[in-house]
Amino acid sequence: MCGIVGIVGKSHVNQGIYDALTVLQHRGQDAAGIVTSYQNKLYLRKDNGLVRDVFRTRHMQRLIGNMGIGHIRYPTAGSSSSAEAQPFYVNSPYGITLAHNGNLTNAEQLAQDIYREDLRHVNTTSDSEVLLNIFAHELQVQGQIKPTPEVIFNAVRRVHERVKGGYAVVAMISGYGIVAFRDPNGIRPAVFGSKQTSAGTEYMVASESVALDALEFKIERDIAPGEAIVVTEEGELHTRLCADNTRLTPCLFEYVYFARPDSIMDEMAVYKARLRMGEKLAEKIVREHPEHDIDVVIPIPDTSRSSALELAKKLGVKYREGFMKNRYIGRTFIMPGQTQRKKSVRQKLNALDLEFRGKNVLLVDDSIVRGTTCEQIIEMARDAGANKVYFASAAPAVRYPNVYGIDMPAKDEFIAHGRTTDEIAKDIGADWLVYQDLQDLIDSCLEGSSTSATAFDCSVFNGEYVTGDIDEEYFERLHLLRSDSSKGRHAVENVAIDLHNDDSPEGQL
Amino acid sequence: MCGIVGIVGKSHVNQGIYDALTVLQHRGQDAAGIVTSYQNKLYLRKDNGLVRDVFRTRHMQRLIGNMGIGHIRYPTAGSSSSAEAQPFYVNSPYGITLAHNGNLTNAEQLAQDIYREDLRHVNTTSDSEVLLNIFAHELQVQGQIKPTPEVIFNAVRRVHERVKGGYAVVAMISGYGIVAFRDPNGIRPAVFGSKQTSAGTEYMVASESVALDALEFKIERDIAPGEAIVVTEEGELHTRLCADNTRLTPCLFEYVYFARPDSIMDEMAVYKARLRMGEKLAEKIVREHPEHDIDVVIPIPDTSRSSALELAKKLGVKYREGFMKNRYIGRTFIMPGQTQRKKSVRQKLNALDLEFRGKNVLLVDDSIVRGTTCEQIIEMARDAGANKVYFASAAPAVRYPNVYGIDMPAKDEFIAHGRTTDEIAKDIGADWLVYQDLQDLIDSCLEGSSTSATAFDCSVFNGEYVTGDIDEEYFERLHLLRSDSSKGRHAVENVAIDLHNDDSPEGQL
Amino acid sequence: MCGIVGIVGKSHVNQGIYDALTVLQHRGQDAAGIVTSYQNKLYLRKDNGLVRDVFRTRHMQRLIGNMGIGHIRYPTAGSSSSAEAQPFYVNSPYGITLAHNGNLTNAEQLAQDIYREDLRHVNTTSDSEVLLNIFAHELQVQGQIKPTPEVIFNAVRRVHERVKGGYAVVAMISGYGIVAFRDPNGIRPAVFGSKQTSAGTEYMVASESVALDALEFKIERDIAPGEAIVVTEEGELHTRLCADNTRLTPCLFEYVYFARPDSIMDEMAVYKARLRMGEKLAEKIVREHPEHDIDVVIPIPDTSRSSALELAKKLGVKYREGFMKNRYIGRTFIMPGQTQRKKSVRQKLNALDLEFRGKNVLLVDDSIVRGTTCEQIIEMARDAGANKVYFASAAPAVRYPNVYGIDMPAKDEFIAHGRTTDEIAKDIGADWLVYQDLQDLIDSCLEGSSTSATAFDCSVFNGEYVTGDIDEEYFERLHLLRSDSSKGRHAVENVAIDLHNDDSPEGQL
Amino acid sequence: MCGIVGIVGKSHVNQGIYDALTVLQHRGQDAAGIVTSYQNKLYLRKDNGLVRDVFRTRHMQRLIGNMGIGHIRYPTAGSSSSAEAQPFYVNSPYGITLAHNGNLTNAEQLAQDIYREDLRHVNTTSDSEVLLNIFAHELQVQGQIKPTPEVIFNAVRRVHERVKGGYAVVAMISGYGIVAFRDPNGIRPAVFGSKQTSAGTEYMVASESVALDALEFKIERDIAPGEAIVVTEEGELHTRLCADNTRLTPCLFEYVYFARPDSIMDEMAVYKARLRMGEKLAEKIVREHPEHDIDVVIPIPDTSRSSALELAKKLGVKYREGFMKNRYIGRTFIMPGQTQRKKSVRQKLNALDLEFRGKNVLLVDDSIVRGTTCEQIIEMARDAGANKVYFASAAPAVRYPNVYGIDMPAKDEFIAHGRTTDEIAKDIGADWLVYQDLQDLIDSCLEGSSTSATAFDCSVFNGEYVTGDIDEEYFERLHLLRSDSSKGRHAVENVAIDLHNDDSPEGQL
Repeated sequence: MCGIVGIVGKSHVNQGIYDALTVLQHRGQDAAGIVTSYQNKLYLRKDNGLVRDVFRTRHMQRLIGNMGIGHIRYPTAGSSSSAEAQPFYVNSPYGITLAHNGNLTNAEQLAQDIYREDLRHVNTTSDSEVLLNIFAHELQVQGQIKPTPEVIFNAVRRVHERVKGGYAVVAMISGYGIVAFRDPNGIRPAVFGSKQTSAGTEYMVASESVALDALEFKIERDIAPGEAIVVTEEGELHTRLCADNTRLTPCLFEYVYFARPDSIMDEMAVYKARLRMGEKLAEKIVREHPEHDIDVVIPIPDTSRSSALELAKKLGVKYREGFMKNRYIGRTFIMPGQTQRKKSVRQKLNALDLEFRGKNVLLVDDSIVRGTTCEQIIEMARDAGANKVYFASAAPAVRYPNVYGIDMPAKDEFIAHGRTTDEIAKDIGADWLVYQDLQDLIDSCLEGSSTSATAFDCSVFNGEYVTGDIDEEYFERLHLLRSDSSKGRHAVENVAIDLHNDDSPEGQL
Repeated sequence: MCGIVGIVGKSHVNQGIYDALTVLQHRGQDAAGIVTSYQNKLYLRKDNGLVRDVFRTRHMQRLIGNMGIGHIRYPTAGSSSSAEAQPFYVNSPYGITLAHNGNLTNAEQLAQDIYREDLRHVNTTSDSEVLLNIFAHELQVQGQIKPTPEVIFNAVRRVHERVKGGYAVVAMISGYGIVAFRDPNGIRPAVFGSKQTSAGTEYMVASESVALDALEFKIERDIAPGEAIVVTEEGELHTRLCADNTRLTPCLFEYVYFARPDSIMDEMAVYKARLRMGEKLAEKIVREHPEHDIDVVIPIPDTSRSSALELAKKLGVKYREGFMKNRYIGRTFIMPGQTQRKKSVRQKLNALDLEFRGKNVLLVDDSIVRGTTCEQIIEMARDAGANKVYFASAAPAVRYPNVYGIDMPAKDEFIAHGRTTDEIAKDIGADWLVYQDLQDLIDSCLEGSSTSATAFDCSVFNGEYVTGDIDEEYFERLHLLRSDSSKGRHAVENVAIDLHNDDSPEGQL
Repeated sequence: MCGIVGIVGKSHVNQGIYDALTVLQHRGQDAAGIVTSYQNKLYLRKDNGLVRDVFRTRHMQRLIGNMGIGHIRYPTAGSSSSAEAQPFYVNSPYGITLAHNGNLTNAEQLAQDIYREDLRHVNTTSDSEVLLNIFAHELQVQGQIKPTPEVIFNAVRRVHERVKGGYAVVAMISGYGIVAFRDPNGIRPAVFGSKQTSAGTEYMVASESVALDALEFKIERDIAPGEAIVVTEEGELHTRLCADNTRLTPCLFEYVYFARPDSIMDEMAVYKARLRMGEKLAEKIVREHPEHDIDVVIPIPDTSRSSALELAKKLGVKYREGFMKNRYIGRTFIMPGQTQRKKSVRQKLNALDLEFRGKNVLLVDDSIVRGTTCEQIIEMARDAGANKVYFASAAPAVRYPNVYGIDMPAKDEFIAHGRTTDEIAKDIGADWLVYQDLQDLIDSCLEGSSTSATAFDCSVFNGEYVTGDIDEEYFERLHLLRSDSSKGRHAVENVAIDLHNDDSPEGQL
Repeated sequence: MCGIVGIVGKSHVNQGIYDALTVLQHRGQDAAGIVTSYQNKLYLRKDNGLVRDVFRTRHMQRLIGNMGIGHIRYPTAGSSSSAEAQPFYVNSPYGITLAHNGNLTNAEQLAQDIYREDLRHVNTTSDSEVLLNIFAHELQVQGQIKPTPEVIFNAVRRVHERVKGGYAVVAMISGYGIVAFRDPNGIRPAVFGSKQTSAGTEYMVASESVALDALEFKIERDIAPGEAIVVTEEGELHTRLCADNTRLTPCLFEYVYFARPDSIMDEMAVYKARLRMGEKLAEKIVREHPEHDIDVVIPIPDTSRSSALELAKKLGVKYREGFMKNRYIGRTFIMPGQTQRKKSVRQKLNALDLEFRGKNVLLVDDSIVRGTTCEQIIEMARDAGANKVYFASAAPAVRYPNVYGIDMPAKDEFIAHGRTTDEIAKDIGADWLVYQDLQDLIDSCLEGSSTSATAFDCSVFNGEYVTGDIDEEYFERLHLLRSDSSKGRHAVENVAIDLHNDDSPEGQL
């Protein structure tokens, strides 16, 4: 998962983009970047690290100009390099920079295509660089000395035709303006808004509505699936639907885990959805364990707090924050002669004995992926004196990889892979385990909302990929690629990749 | 407020001290330091910043040795310099390093004394440097070529006689061992524990029990008021009461605000105390507003969540987390030609409209100091559509400065200074305001506990200072000193102080 | 002036390029950059600073691959930004990086052309970025999926047709090989060589032969004017003359000042030329001052030592190194409240009184540009007790700007501008002054050499520009551009340019 | 070798000390430090590296105050740690900082003494820390609340009685003033001077007169052997001879190699001495090789240039600078899988073939220590085509270790150890070799000078140590210590020492 921001303002936008990126920081703590445009020149700063660490005064002071875009990156397989921090840049045509959230499922093929048809070199393994070059190529072939909304909408249409996957994109064309668009299934989120100033209207686009709230922009609406918006440097807004057969099937996992609770996405309030998840989960627990002997409901902080609170209320059981989160996690250093120690969940959480001692506790988490954290937490609960430990997941069992930008382990690393709920309960050490039903989860999001979404990308739960092009062969190719790539790295003794993690972003171009 | 740690282990202690400091990071995010001892040599790293930023691999690798001490610093008036990060060092006698949590109320006089009697130069404005020199002097006058527990306990006794204030101290004597002691009123906390290893027993001392929990040390007990403990490098433990007329009057504010909820201090569980604060506050609300029309109880995150949850339960009103905390706060940069913008509370909190819209909300915070944050939050609640906004403080009105190590504004900056509760409510914009009663707060801590404390330092609430030496003259002198000091700074155009905030700690010796 | 290096080797070339750049460091201390290619990916590091400061272990370790190019930059007007460090990169076609030494006199026009004809955005004011885009465009229009020597030679031919000025270029085409070429007048130098290894032949190109010496490459020959050489990644060498009507007119100032004395350029040994400059200058001194009363000849270190030594010998006068050069120059810091102090030549040189006291001294320098340094040095000589101070310049009076890559002040800042030799002598405070005759300087270079050069670019001395396209209008336009550019900068309060001088090179793309 | 500076001025002295340190940088490039005093507080910055790298604007801006001292360090055995950069500090008594140039031969014993008698902990292996503690102790025992010149002179007298070796010391007493003194044999140099300003007289002390020249201080005189000077913060100068039986026997190697040629030390001009060394060496060459067939005299740059020039003149042979020095030496990086390559002298020097081809050359160097560099240079000369290669050393054969502060290899690493001149010639590959006679070297320094020195410390040439306390046992102990110390380091896997070489100086206290 990543976060994107774009602003066309009436004064320097660097601080605004910076603030918006900090508000979206939960979507990715791996790398950050901002590019601005001033008098036709671009000013860029990007590096690995948190927003507050990447941007120092000296960087901010040269990020001048009234329009710009920004990005924060979540670590994904094979992209640890600071060279792959976004935005990316190509100088031809016009000078374009681009950042995106999502994943292209045909990036490999596209990289070959753009080399063949346009001799465009792709220097990283990032699909954003591919996406940028496709977009750039489709602008270039139209041969206009200056882009127009028409030209740009044509190019976006071509991008939608060629590119597969889930993506929300923000791009800046030097000396012209900003473009944002969303894949034809609306898998990845993007919202835009405006602010009236004495100098005219400013526009902003971002991954989540909270970013607009924080900058006091009025939310206009979500960008529609397949739609593109263009904001010129002068502040004119143009919108256009650039794909046929679009439909809105947003990623369900955003509501479960990724999005900030105070965001509203595709007109569904995340916080409200999470409350309802708790409610429906309570109902299922009562159905499955009508005689339950739960003394206290305890959330695994932070995401599941809203659901757990409502769940407890519905169950009529006490809600208590029995785990304290250590907010200042440090590193484990290796002294000469030592071997790496495993970071345990105990460095992140501490159990409050008095909430566990002699009690039957129901632990609530948003979801279960590998199951290893669950297992350790349940062990902590027992060490703290819990009598019985039950576990409830606000989401159904995760059994399939995500291919639209959420970094997940391979299929066989999911604890739910090939296991029944009872087997999983046993594996993680719970006395019993209850998973939310998929339909309940979907209903939690839809209920009481005016969203135009009628379905979601639920692939991680049910293996149905909304883009319709994901088959076994895809995963095999992916698996192969990753092994190759790791072999390639070993060939140069991890130099190329591992050492990119330093303070200078120019490892690769 | 600050945090201290000391470990005598059976292998390198750097990682352990580092981990403990991250667990105590809530006690101070301003500076951090670790010193270790190996073969009679000391290895030190300290600087401004969070633990995770101050210690890099290169620093950790040279912090060798099986014993060491660590410190994290909360910013206090006039100590922004990295040169004043702790621990401090004197080479005579023995080579001693020391760190402390607290404040000496006669530091100024002591600094003059030690120069006069021992020609000891104090290079900073930190009272820790004074404390270290007093301790060092009292060791030196005993003239032993090698310290013994006896010699050390004598020195601590003399320290208690000379020094006034609240303090919890950890010191390391090169080639000998670690010493920890607590002021005769036990104002500042310190706890110690042990861990059995195949190589023998390891000992650890820290400000809060959570640090011992995290390192899986067994908690032995709190250090008693006026007591000192000595752990030799070989792992022998010695303890001694080094003051007469001691009594345990811990700082009440630790329970209200500073300590982590999962800590147990002087045998009072902080979390439990906070639950009870909510309970008693609910009772008072019912007493004062029997007909209240509260729809929902909303905590100001994070500290007040436990109290608010219990308060809501007692009131029989819904508890909802209506404010989302932005965990990644950035900075505000000044572009050439701009002036500084005010950081508003809106960068830290975001209100979830749907929890406020049309409702009568009761906001709960742990305490109210200046009142400016309260005011902004209440405004946010109203902007989010709240009908009525009530406010409850888990602590009584703060009306007096703290002189034992908690950095507080001058008396006249407290919103409660010279104002009635109703006036304060009006000032912060609340429909009504309820403060906890002091006795209720005290009872919240004491109830159900086996603590030997029968009273607390409640000075910020009632102006009664347990050390008995604080009068109007003291505050006048303090006020004068601070003005002088700021004048001094201006004389060199803020160079000496302001620019110490950089990456190298050696600004002053 | 700048320095360029390119190597196609049989093992990692990073260290070789690094070493070559240090050997060429006298050609530019302002910025440095290296790009290498490994398995079709490019790895880049560039920043402001000396070679030894720009490349740290972490950078070198990721500069993997058997081919690469490097650059060191001399500060030129308006290019203080680290963003303008070379090499530059474009991804289309093929992925090309390029670095050059020299200056294009029609860069402004070309930048507009490539935008118009190919929509290529140029983000800096560096003519290297323009040159790269021209070259890239001329490759692209040939539409080959893989470049061939033929395709590249065609492109270079087109570059020579479009580009005006003096330039020596090295470029790398990702996954293909390295290209080097020199302008049709051979103004800027470039030499190439080879080394036999067990794995095959390695090739290297550089600005000066000393770089090849240092890496123990055998010098093949200078690249001819208008010639291009291509070395494929596999190690095949192709050469081709890519311009008509070429002739060799190297920059005369290289021999006077820029080149290392141990270099041989276009088959003229720089050291030998400088000895002869001394000889011929001595002859002129004898002609002009047959009765001279010179006691001692003293060079201004370091460049003029060779000439001065031979001059003294010819005159039959003692040669003494009367000025000591301070090799560790520091900075002048501004304390709050202070204003900038002028750096005087006294921080760079110290006069040995005993060589001056009571003597008639002849000071020898390579050339005189602004005259301010001369003036200070002559004053130092008098302060050290010199009786009479004569001055000799190994080059004729500098009266015209250089437009082929040597950064010179505007015409009216030359001390020789509109002044006779006697007037200059008076201005700088010399008892008399002798300038080398231009023909003598030319003969110093040509004599005893097998060079194919029959003329030089002597424009700084005689105002005749070998490219034939430099007129008054050119200088007026240049003057205007610089003023505009400085105005532009002021508009953003020097932010865009001045603050690029930091440790991260990504200020502009 | 190291360099020291101290200034008591009438305005901030940081820039002056900084400038002086750059002028003295040839005496040590390993580490640098400055401490200043302002209103009784000390401000310190020290770290490994060149002066220009250690002091950045942020450091300089806090080095406030009108008095201060500075130091640059030459790497000596076992002192690679930045923690051992000088000045050192003790807080008791008064707050004293100290820096010195030289070496104590009884440091080990003294460190034990000061622990025993005063419990003073020494945390590094630096003899400067020992010297500081001795000085501090001798001040402390006099028990004065404020030091006086009398008290300080007493302490210096005691230091001279206890300390053995060669040393030139500058110390600052917080709030009082600056002290400088020189060992009773005057082995290490120190000179002082004054400058009249409108605010009164400023005083400065430094290792070499060039530092005073550069700051435009008038040289008063060298500090006499055993003498101390005190300059109070107010600018009063006090001087006193603090030892009996002093005599001036300066280190002869300063004149041969260390000192800048433009310095005057103990009233002997270094440059003049070097000219005479060349003259006398020429005479010996004529004596030994009356029929010599030398075509050209070539110095090994930079030190021997003055001697070689005069030598050539005396011989009536051409002088030519046949070796070019590469002034920008880089590092050799190790790529994964590579092993360290040997840095050859070819990276530092390049031979100008045309000065060697077919000629009989006489190479001149200041001295020969290990002989490995000589050997490589002679090989370079032959590779460049030299017919015969003769070698002359301006100093006699180096056969004995230096114990007064010049870092030299162990005795058996000297090429002259147990070898005749002919054997050495053969070993380094010279056709013949001529060493200066010791008496000629001494005469070169003394002739025409008004110095009060009548003898020198010539120990490296003749094994006679002027302090009279150096015997075989001393060297055995030293050898043992160094082995122990390296063993000790291995025990912690080089952590304590090797990793101190980073950017923060606080490794040890």
